[in-house]
Amino acid sequence: MNGAQALLRSLLASGVDTCFANPGTSEMHFVAALDGVPQMRAVLTLFEGVATGAADGYARMAERPAATLLHLGPGLGNGLANLHNARRAGTPVVNVVGDHATTHAKYDAPLQSDIAAIAGAVSGWVRHGALTAEIGADAAAAVAAARAGQVATLVLPADVSWNDGGEPVTEPLPVAARTPVAPDALRAAADALSSGEPCVLLVGGDATRAAGLAAADRIAAATGARVLAETFPTRLERGAGVARVDRLPYAVDAAVAQLAGSRHLVLAGARSPVSFFAYPGKPSDLVPPGCDVHPLAGREGPLTDGTATAALEELADLLAPGTAPRLAPASRPELPTGPLTVSTAAAVVGALLPEGAVVVDESVTSGLGLPATTAGAPRHDWLTLTGGSIGYGLPTATGAAVACPDRPVWCLQADGSAMYTISALWTHAREGLDITTIIYHNSAYAILRTELMQVGAPQVGAADTGGSRARALLDLGGPELDFVALARGMGVPGVRATTAEELADALRRATAEPGPHLVEAMVPALVP
Amino acid sequence: MNGAQALLRSLLASGVDTCFANPGTSEMHFVAALDGVPQMRAVLTLFEGVATGAADGYARMAERPAATLLHLGPGLGNGLANLHNARRAGTPVVNVVGDHATTHAKYDAPLQSDIAAIAGAVSGWVRHGALTAEIGADAAAAVAAARAGQVATLVLPADVSWNDGGEPVTEPLPVAARTPVAPDALRAAADALSSGEPCVLLVGGDATRAAGLAAADRIAAATGARVLAETFPTRLERGAGVARVDRLPYAVDAAVAQLAGSRHLVLAGARSPVSFFAYPGKPSDLVPPGCDVHPLAGREGPLTDGTATAALEELADLLAPGTAPRLAPASRPELPTGPLTVSTAAAVVGALLPEGAVVVDESVTSGLGLPATTAGAPRHDWLTLTGGSIGYGLPTATGAAVACPDRPVWCLQADGSAMYTISALWTHAREGLDITTIIYHNSAYAILRTELMQVGAPQVGAADTGGSRARALLDLGGPELDFVALARGMGVPGVRATTAEELADALRRATAEPGPHLVEAMVPALVP
Repeated sequence: MNGAQALLRSLLASGVDTCFANPGTSEMHFVAALDGVPQMRAVLTLFEGVATGAADGYARMAERPAATLLHLGPGLGNGLANLHNARRAGTPVVNVVGDHATTHAKYDAPLQSDIAAIAGAVSGWVRHGALTAEIGADAAAAVAAARAGQVATLVLPADVSWNDGGEPVTEPLPVAARTPVAPDALRAAADALSSGEPCVLLVGGDATRAAGLAAADRIAAATGARVLAETFPTRLERGAGVARVDRLPYAVDAAVAQLAGSRHLVLAGARSPVSFFAYPGKPSDLVPPGCDVHPLAGREGPLTDGTATAALEELADLLAPGTAPRLAPASRPELPTGPLTVSTAAAVVGALLPEGAVVVDESVTSGLGLPATTAGAPRHDWLTLTGGSIGYGLPTATGAAVACPDRPVWCLQADGSAMYTISALWTHAREGLDITTIIYHNSAYAILRTELMQVGAPQVGAADTGGSRARALLDLGGPELDFVALARGMGVPGVRATTAEELADALRRATAEPGPHLVEAMVPALVP
Repeated sequence: MNGAQALLRSLLASGVDTCFANPGTSEMHFVAALDGVPQMRAVLTLFEGVATGAADGYARMAERPAATLLHLGPGLGNGLANLHNARRAGTPVVNVVGDHATTHAKYDAPLQSDIAAIAGAVSGWVRHGALTAEIGADAAAAVAAARAGQVATLVLPADVSWNDGGEPVTEPLPVAARTPVAPDALRAAADALSSGEPCVLLVGGDATRAAGLAAADRIAAATGARVLAETFPTRLERGAGVARVDRLPYAVDAAVAQLAGSRHLVLAGARSPVSFFAYPGKPSDLVPPGCDVHPLAGREGPLTDGTATAALEELADLLAPGTAPRLAPASRPELPTGPLTVSTAAAVVGALLPEGAVVVDESVTSGLGLPATTAGAPRHDWLTLTGGSIGYGLPTATGAAVACPDRPVWCLQADGSAMYTISALWTHAREGLDITTIIYHNSAYAILRTELMQVGAPQVGAADTGGSRARALLDLGGPELDFVALARGMGVPGVRATTAEELADALRRATAEPGPHLVEAMVPALVP
């Protein structure tokens, strides 16, 4: 058995049966080995950022890692942005990065590069698989490392793949036991919450799933504390029958206002809140002056670890014994009519979001109305842009749909960020994935119009050329993108909607038919 | 004056007047500063890999660096693949990578990452611009470093941009003097070439321009040495009136055959030849046994350095005084008729390539016939995939067209590699660039079919599932990509050609009309 075969069998034995791939020459033995391991599903992507984003989306929903197959340093580089998001999400991902044969490295051939340096920027675990006899064990170690909630990158030299002597691992390595809740941390949180002073309970990580939110809500009802979710949760369960939670706002002024007056901040799976970007004269640390921070359970750890949820449940039983959470009632907005706007588009989504949907949200400014209009929709999962690296929506939807073939995936996708990884649509079509993509077409990097004002840039709209050259760099209107044509070019049926009625019709049809669909929603930017 | 303004003015004073940009929040002051510096042309791209590839193409043609503007670590990551190609090309590129404010870094906000580690993998020069008062000098140093023929990356924290106290540099830093030819190296090369023994003169770097090729040809005519160009030249001047040179083949068996029997190998701007990939049982080092290697002038150094050309000219005057080079005569193939094939498509290109064209070649297997059919076309430049990182064609054509507004750019682009950076088409349209893109549509990663056989992968077409699952990962046919629709979606007029006549018609129309065009040439793969 060669190294590639041992590697593939070891991945399977470790519980990895899906590989998002964009291979090259150095990965040809891995590709060839797929023939002998039909249990491994290989999903071809046309760009590595689609593969890595898909692995993130897959793991967020499947609660176990997928593998990626990438081609040397440049292939890993192309996948870096979505691996960054996976790192921030605490998602388990196993990268297999092909490398030149070990005997070839010294020649500094054109594709030679420092793969480990590139991998280190996004991976919690990096290993150069130097020996065919050990590559099976390396693969098992990569999966175990990933399961601790991180990106694990295994560099696979071509000759380690092609040489004989591979030894497959047949059992998964044990996963580390759940971290117990520290009694001191529990007591401190309990004291703060029952102090009668203004208190915010910030939930993140595994605590944004239904069980964690239920426990947090019981605590809030008993103590008067406010519950907030971190700004960009990895996976937020919500909708009818789930305890409702608002997210800490992205905009720094709004976040500061939201937390103002708190005397205690209890962190359950969330990190202490900081602003996404820095702005002149505004705080980076969002903890209000005089507020004590009480870390109850850490942010790190795999999605399935459940440490934060367990801590919240223990705390709820202590502070609110025998109570039940207040669950969101079923409630949908009425279907609006007339021109599409951020508001009417959000109402249409809230009115039609199907039962059990997985929502992948990269709607950016066009999605501002969505949290309110979907709060009472049938129960669903909401995945967000955890690391701020745009171009995550279409790829992450790919992986979520592969992980959940029986659930509808709705990808709410801004136009500007869609273009980073637009080729994901081809994989949607190739795999027949049940993904409905809404492109919010506002012909601008609209968020940057706000940011340009937020950072206090001096000349915009004033001196010199009056801001027109700066604004032109945020403008996507010349030429106008046609996402229906782009979708058709990659085998996905698409339609453009300019009214609420057209959007509703298109979404109904997309939901009724299996396979991928794209709806281009012409939604004017909030900031003109 | 704030830091961003000082930075921009210093870039201009250093000779950089073009910036390929994909900005985010941390770059908003740079963007705002553009209003005050209208001499700086800012070209918006929808993906960072387009910006970096454009900077590579720009510098190959303009012989001076452009800047890129990228957004933190993930933005740099997206640009990494084409920076890798620029590194291998020896192209001068100045990256300006925005970073969080220096005061914000310690909070480990979502977009925080190790930018320097990522940059180091592709850059010969990296600096973290920590002080507003020095950011102008940092920019000038970056340009000077780039001019030495490398990628220079300047990390620009947001507060260094927005703080007052920027001090612009007003004069470029001096560029290092040309490296003189070492007399010993010259003598050794002269001895080898006049030894009467079989000798190959391998040219690369600046020596693949007309002057270097002319000198090499004079040497060859006088001594009987064979001249070959490196496999992937940065910029190869060719066509009628230029001394003709063949390139060392990519395929390892062909390259070995080409060099077999050589007793001496003289390197002028080329590195000692190695195989692109390693293959079981085949050599990595392509120097034949018993062949002496004589490095005459190094590979590194800027395009404009001219060291290798000067060395060849000195050698030619020594070995072939008073001779003139044999220049390629004007000669075009006849326009073929009938179905499109790799051969007929190449003949059409050879018959119609316009005077002064810049050819950006990422045709991969579909381009095999092109060197022969275009050898006598009107004089043109031929840019190649120096680093093997695919997705270079459309972006590099962007930059070449910006650098050479009066020359037609032909982008010969394979379908699979086109999809990595397809959004470059939007920038073609936005800037009205005179780029004619031929997409060679064969619905496969056709080169990998060959590579799968080359590496001796054991199971293909034999055991288990008979190779079908492996082959599926190299197949782009399900669904069929429609590049005319993709082009329309980004504002570029496109047409599909299935016969030689249709391809010729489409290319004539594209040449006659200004602005970008795309022709989708339906060319069956050589390896079915």
